Amino acid sequence: MSSAHNTQVLLDSRPRGWPTEANFRIVETPIPEPGEGELLVRVHWLSLDPYMRGRMNDGKSYAAKVELGEVMIGGAVGEVVRSNNPAFKEGDFLVGSFGWQEYALSKGNGVMKVDPARAPLSAYLGAVGMPGITAYIGLLDIGAPKAGETVVVSAASGAVGCVVGQIAKMRGCRAVGIAGGAAKCALVMGEFGFDACIDYKAGNLRGDLKTATPKGIDCLFENVGGEIFDTLLGRMNPFARIAVCGLIAQYNSAPYPMQNIGSVLINRIKMQGFIVSDDMSRWPPALKELGGLVATGKLKYRETVANGLAAAPAAFISLLKGGNFGKQLVKLT
Amino acid sequence: MSSAHNTQVLLDSRPRGWPTEANFRIVETPIPEPGEGELLVRVHWLSLDPYMRGRMNDGKSYAAKVELGEVMIGGAVGEVVRSNNPAFKEGDFLVGSFGWQEYALSKGNGVMKVDPARAPLSAYLGAVGMPGITAYIGLLDIGAPKAGETVVVSAASGAVGCVVGQIAKMRGCRAVGIAGGAAKCALVMGEFGFDACIDYKAGNLRGDLKTATPKGIDCLFENVGGEIFDTLLGRMNPFARIAVCGLIAQYNSAPYPMQNIGSVLINRIKMQGFIVSDDMSRWPPALKELGGLVATGKLKYRETVANGLAAAPAAFISLLKGGNFGKQLVKLT
Repeated sequence: MSSAHNTQVLLDSRPRGWPTEANFRIVETPIPEPGEGELLVRVHWLSLDPYMRGRMNDGKSYAAKVELGEVMIGGAVGEVVRSNNPAFKEGDFLVGSFGWQEYALSKGNGVMKVDPARAPLSAYLGAVGMPGITAYIGLLDIGAPKAGETVVVSAASGAVGCVVGQIAKMRGCRAVGIAGGAAKCALVMGEFGFDACIDYKAGNLRGDLKTATPKGIDCLFENVGGEIFDTLLGRMNPFARIAVCGLIAQYNSAPYPMQNIGSVLINRIKMQGFIVSDDMSRWPPALKELGGLVATGKLKYRETVANGLAAAPAAFISLLKGGNFGKQLVKLT
Repeated sequence: MSSAHNTQVLLDSRPRGWPTEANFRIVETPIPEPGEGELLVRVHWLSLDPYMRGRMNDGKSYAAKVELGEVMIGGAVGEVVRSNNPAFKEGDFLVGSFGWQEYALSKGNGVMKVDPARAPLSAYLGAVGMPGITAYIGLLDIGAPKAGETVVVSAASGAVGCVVGQIAKMRGCRAVGIAGGAAKCALVMGEFGFDACIDYKAGNLRGDLKTATPKGIDCLFENVGGEIFDTLLGRMNPFARIAVCGLIAQYNSAPYPMQNIGSVLINRIKMQGFIVSDDMSRWPPALKELGGLVATGKLKYRETVANGLAAAPAAFISLLKGGNFGKQLVKLT
């Protein structure tokens, strides 16, 4: 990819079921000129996240779809290389929705300046970014765990899940993760300090869950959906809370037929779906706490990095299949 | 049944699937003597409610099961005929958990004095009793409807559902009911003043729902579960609330496999199960408002009355199958 061009990844066709690389098209276009009040941002890191799968569909989701031929949507961190906007200057580092491309124009709306001296740039897409805030809001505002309670999070080794468990531990809870494979479980317990981690691929989810949650589940942070979610529903305690953050298991296939919704009534569960961008007023306090925890090394995270934008489609598909360890990123510079 | 005996209905065996009359046993026992601090209550009206089905099971439910050979549990209204407790005197009318029997002993715990001059005695088991309070708490505390929003309630002609819709109307909402059959729908719209009622037996639930909720559903009061609940989930608006009060469709059969749980995430729905007895502090304000509304004729209700305790098992089974119009009662005197 020549630095004189802007490499972009477009949505070329809508997937049916699992996306393939053929759903994307990589193009090279001229680097755009910033107009009046605009910035030109060179993207350093692109974030890949499960929610992007929903944007590839034509149907109703919680946010606008990407149109065919448009640049794929995505959060990224980049550097201002030209500015016609007095609020920003060359060399500023920004997080924003810059999309799957090397250069982006911005009017400065919805971007946030970040300090590379406080945390590595990539962390602003993970533990000190949208995934971290997602964990923070879902766990604390909806899950509202009390010390001594048991918190379970699925996709525990992921960018969101690992923050959920670590904050739960800091709040005095028992943190139990669910992840796919022994290596991820080792990461969840060893690096992130969860009390237990269940390998759902080991084939004994129900029994392992019972062992890992001897006092049942008070608070569930649900990232996965499907059979795992259904099994967890059967293990909830009275007055438990469920933050529904993602249902990745059904993004690419028909919905799993849930059997245990009765638990919502029997146990008087509060279950709530949420999107991190619904209440932006929660971002500053979340970022303050998360930034401090990362800066002091108290909040750990892991990254899986794909190199170059051309690798983004394959990395995204791998993410949907659980191939990543921690936050999935694409390094562009 | 001789008035010199106490007719009682015992749980004789646990049903598998739908209960039958053979699961109950009717016995005549001596009228008991109240001991120190006790009252003897003659039951006038027995309430039959779907929750009783759960108490017949051995498995986990939200409350203790009835043991085999025990009197079936149930709310009732009765008259104190002997009192060894200074807080109560002969002639007092009480609502309490007196069970399926003509005479009950009580220590006075958990009973409530009611005034037959303010509302008919039977109303204290319906609109001004547990079902009315259930409607009040579920709709106002969990559903929290705002004027102009659309409220949907299933089992709309029942003791709970009819109160939900009428209070929703009083709060300025569009009230849409779901009921089984044209006669119930006529009652729901004509007598209870709902804006629309969908006859789910007419075979066009999805289409009729769309017509009846042109602006989608903001607030769902769920009494039924199963396919109806799943269909309603697909019609919810962003930030909708669901009060899960009952799932009668699955009390006697395997759970319906729910397909539309994804709506909880897409629409950031808050779904919460509740039991009316979880927070007794809500009863006094609810009873005050409901009592006033019934006394002034602003809150309407309908009753289906079975005569004599021997008719209770058949009436209960009919209730589970939707045979009742409004509140199902058994008249004992």
